[in-house]
Amino acid sequence: MERITMAHGSGGEETSRLIEAVFAKYLGNSYLSQMEDSTVVPGSSELAVTTDSFVVTPYIYPGGDIGRLCVCGTVNDLLMSGAVPQYLTCGFILEEGLPLEKLEQIVRSMADTAEEAGVLVAAGDTKVIENRGDAEGGLMINTAGVGFMRAGVQRLLPSGIQAGDQVLVSGRLGDHHAAILGCRLQMAHSIRSDNAPLSEMAEALFDRGLHVHEMRDVTRGGLAGVLNELAGASGKVIGLEEQDIPVSPEVTSFAGILGLDPLYMGNEGKMVLFVPKKEAQEALEIIRACRYGEEAALIGSVREPEAGESPILLLHTGIGGTRILGPLYGEGLPRIC
Amino acid sequence: MERITMAHGSGGEETSRLIEAVFAKYLGNSYLSQMEDSTVVPGSSELAVTTDSFVVTPYIYPGGDIGRLCVCGTVNDLLMSGAVPQYLTCGFILEEGLPLEKLEQIVRSMADTAEEAGVLVAAGDTKVIENRGDAEGGLMINTAGVGFMRAGVQRLLPSGIQAGDQVLVSGRLGDHHAAILGCRLQMAHSIRSDNAPLSEMAEALFDRGLHVHEMRDVTRGGLAGVLNELAGASGKVIGLEEQDIPVSPEVTSFAGILGLDPLYMGNEGKMVLFVPKKEAQEALEIIRACRYGEEAALIGSVREPEAGESPILLLHTGIGGTRILGPLYGEGLPRIC
Repeated sequence: MERITMAHGSGGEETSRLIEAVFAKYLGNSYLSQMEDSTVVPGSSELAVTTDSFVVTPYIYPGGDIGRLCVCGTVNDLLMSGAVPQYLTCGFILEEGLPLEKLEQIVRSMADTAEEAGVLVAAGDTKVIENRGDAEGGLMINTAGVGFMRAGVQRLLPSGIQAGDQVLVSGRLGDHHAAILGCRLQMAHSIRSDNAPLSEMAEALFDRGLHVHEMRDVTRGGLAGVLNELAGASGKVIGLEEQDIPVSPEVTSFAGILGLDPLYMGNEGKMVLFVPKKEAQEALEIIRACRYGEEAALIGSVREPEAGESPILLLHTGIGGTRILGPLYGEGLPRIC
Repeated sequence: MERITMAHGSGGEETSRLIEAVFAKYLGNSYLSQMEDSTVVPGSSELAVTTDSFVVTPYIYPGGDIGRLCVCGTVNDLLMSGAVPQYLTCGFILEEGLPLEKLEQIVRSMADTAEEAGVLVAAGDTKVIENRGDAEGGLMINTAGVGFMRAGVQRLLPSGIQAGDQVLVSGRLGDHHAAILGCRLQMAHSIRSDNAPLSEMAEALFDRGLHVHEMRDVTRGGLAGVLNELAGASGKVIGLEEQDIPVSPEVTSFAGILGLDPLYMGNEGKMVLFVPKKEAQEALEIIRACRYGEEAALIGSVREPEAGESPILLLHTGIGGTRILGPLYGEGLPRIC
């Protein structure tokens, strides 16, 4: 079995061969095949830019791999600002010893996901670092993304959130997190990562002319992490109805065994969005009609803080109580992206 | 001394505090301070995009650090395509244990270099990975860059290289490489890295209306690595005059001791360019008038291959001989970027 060596990172002949055999083979397009240090592509008058590094272990897990993950993560960040994702750049940091066939599997998965999400890999880079003790080498990937803003669509910001808005989530929470953690703990279960591009549902919402006030993908820190940030940034009180929040029975029991709260568990293919009350039902139907949105739900609403109250995230529990969901402290959970 | 912990990568409170205390403090601007997952910025009709990961050790070395290095590397890649660099994205992968004060030194250096090069950091991301045995944790940085193409300037490509073109290099070769290698071998010497943005000289050449046919920064693989690639891609024969190639006495003796060839040693603030013969002298004067270009030199010329000859890189030696400079094979040299 062929493996990555330091020579693959030299910038010389071996690097060229690796690029040809793996990266160009799957990701090649008319821009990338120029093999230049930078790529010239058509632009637009307003751009969205983002970056994310992916360091998840294991890098291949039930329902996905780091290649699918990095494309989804970057595409979703662009979508959430209201942009149409266009180009990705990919920086690979490979550890010596990484089996070439695993790298190939990951790059192929990246190419498939990029095609699904309608983006082009416009530039790439490869570095090799010493293996520091793993039985077989791993890899990390950075993806940066460029998107074009839609004509007539304002960029989405937390300040767009209004009292009276309804809160929707596009599906069940915690699946990615549970899939990764289950792997790491070598627990047998049937949970698969939800890693997916949210392109179809984002596009459908804008195409149908809905007035989305804000949207965010639910990743590190989980739903409670994201909504805490948004409560603070918008100066509003966000109230959630516990019994309406979708979590699969498998994730509920997995989280129960480990003493975890699914509201703080990360996803990689879910979004939360804020829409005016009168558009909430239509938004829900649009999302439910999309792939990856079948389990979408209306989970809460927004109000102004009362006198002396801070902007805050509240959970109305099934038994009639109310508790504050604070931000995530400490390590939280193993790295999942 | 405060150090990076896994909690700094959780995406929760500690991540926010790290961003405030270090990243926003130095890199903050009106875009970045929105703290969104993606940033919306003004665009242009034609974009250049690039990406590079930086994994150099040591990450602070004589004459620079990984923060200066990543900005220079990315800015220079954009400049070499004929673009004006505009935005950077930065993805930090921190190892737990990294002293916060060293991270701060690196981020400050990044900010200073970005200001020198006239680019804005538009988006960022931070991940923390386990320390895998270093006494103190290290870090890796990915920077992606977006530039705007100049109106009326064609993107530069190897196919632009013409028979009769003169080859110029913007300064002495091998300094970055020798500085890094000297550190790693704990050899005492006075060589400092040449890491620098090439913005001033690239801009001056275009502003003065010179017809640059191609330019490349001289990084991994050294001058011989870059020119080999360009000979192959342009289908031309590139001939260099050994005695005209600038190398400092310190690098010459350093390379001599270790049996290295400065022509294959990397730089991080040098470029090689191809100009029509009648503009070569003016180009040389323009570059020499720029900071980082004082030691620029005319080092060779381009011709068509003769019948049966392949596109190739030739070195005409000081004693009247000619030898072929092949591409870099094997590991070459320790990782320098």
